[in-house]
Amino acid sequence: MSAAPPQERLTLSLLMKDEAGVLTRIAGLFSRRGYNILSLAVGSSEQPGLSRMTVVISCEPDDIDQIKKQLEKLVDVLSVDCLNEVPFVDRELLMLKVKADSQTRTEIAQIVDLFRGRVVDVSEKSLIVEVTGDQGKLKAILELLQRFEILTLCRTGQIAVMRGDL
Amino acid sequence: MSAAPPQERLTLSLLMKDEAGVLTRIAGLFSRRGYNILSLAVGSSEQPGLSRMTVVISCEPDDIDQIKKQLEKLVDVLSVDCLNEVPFVDRELLMLKVKADSQTRTEIAQIVDLFRGRVVDVSEKSLIVEVTGDQGKLKAILELLQRFEILTLCRTGQIAVMRGDL
Repeated sequence: MSAAPPQERLTLSLLMKDEAGVLTRIAGLFSRRGYNILSLAVGSSEQPGLSRMTVVISCEPDDIDQIKKQLEKLVDVLSVDCLNEVPFVDRELLMLKVKADSQTRTEIAQIVDLFRGRVVDVSEKSLIVEVTGDQGKLKAILELLQRFEILTLCRTGQIAVMRGDL
Repeated sequence: MSAAPPQERLTLSLLMKDEAGVLTRIAGLFSRRGYNILSLAVGSSEQPGLSRMTVVISCEPDDIDQIKKQLEKLVDVLSVDCLNEVPFVDRELLMLKVKADSQTRTEIAQIVDLFRGRVVDVSEKSLIVEVTGDQGKLKAILELLQRFEILTLCRTGQIAVMRGDL
C-alpha cells in the first residue's frame, strides 16, 4: 500500500473562502491521497472574506495536474496557482530561542546580523531571534546556531508570490 | 444553532508528530466545535520528526481549558501551550505585490524602509515587498500601502515564542 517515493517539491497558492471547515477539507484531500504536507501557511488575502493558503507538498511529477484538478473541484477554493510553473519569490519566517550567556551573546548577535535577522528578546540564559529567507538561507543559519543549543524553533511555513507583473 | 459571539483571541503552540493526517484531525476538531481559525502556521520544530503548529482562534474565555484538553487527547499531539497565559513574542511574515511605477516607486520603498521591511523584487509596474511584525505593525503598513493598490497579499499566519528562559 505504500506509495512510490516522492520526487518533486510542489508549491501551491490557493485562494479560498475564509470559513470554518475549508482547511479540514483541503488537509483531508491531501492526507487521503497520501501526499505529505511539507509546510502550510494560511492568512488573509487581498480580497475581503478570502484567505490565501500556501502549501508545499512532496509528490511525483505526474501527479501535479491531478492535484490541481482535485483542489479546483472544492467549492470553497476559488483559484489554485501551481508556482512551480512560473518564477516566484518564496520566503519563510523563523523564530528561535537559543541558549546564550555573557560569553556567547555577542557571537550569536553577529551571526544573526549577517543573515539580516533580528534579536527580538534577551534574557539571562537565552535570546529570541527572527530571520526571514528562502529554504537555503534558513538552513544555513540553523546549522550555524545549532552548536549554541536551540531551545525552541518555530517556523511559519513557506509563502510565495509570482515574480513580475503577473 | 449559532454560537455566542467570540470574545477572546487565543494563541496556541502545539508540538505534534510530523505525519500525514495530523493536520486534518486538528483542523477537524476546531471546525466540528465551530471555533474559527484566524491564522495557522505549521513548520518543523527543534525536535526531528516533530512539527510545531501555531494556531490563533477566536473563542469564549470559558472555552480555553476545554480546547486545551481536547487537543491534548489527540495521540499525535505531544504538547499544547496556551500562550495567552504567559508573556510571548509574536510575529507574522507578510509578502505583497503592490502596483508601482516610476512616480510611486520611491515613496513605496521609503514606507517599506520605515517599517524595516524589504523590497525583494522590482518590475515595470509592481514591487514585491516583505515585512515582519506583530499584528498592529502589519495592519499599519497595509493601511499605508492600500492606496497604491495591493495586487497580491500573502500572509504566513502568526507564530509565537514564550519570552524569557522558559
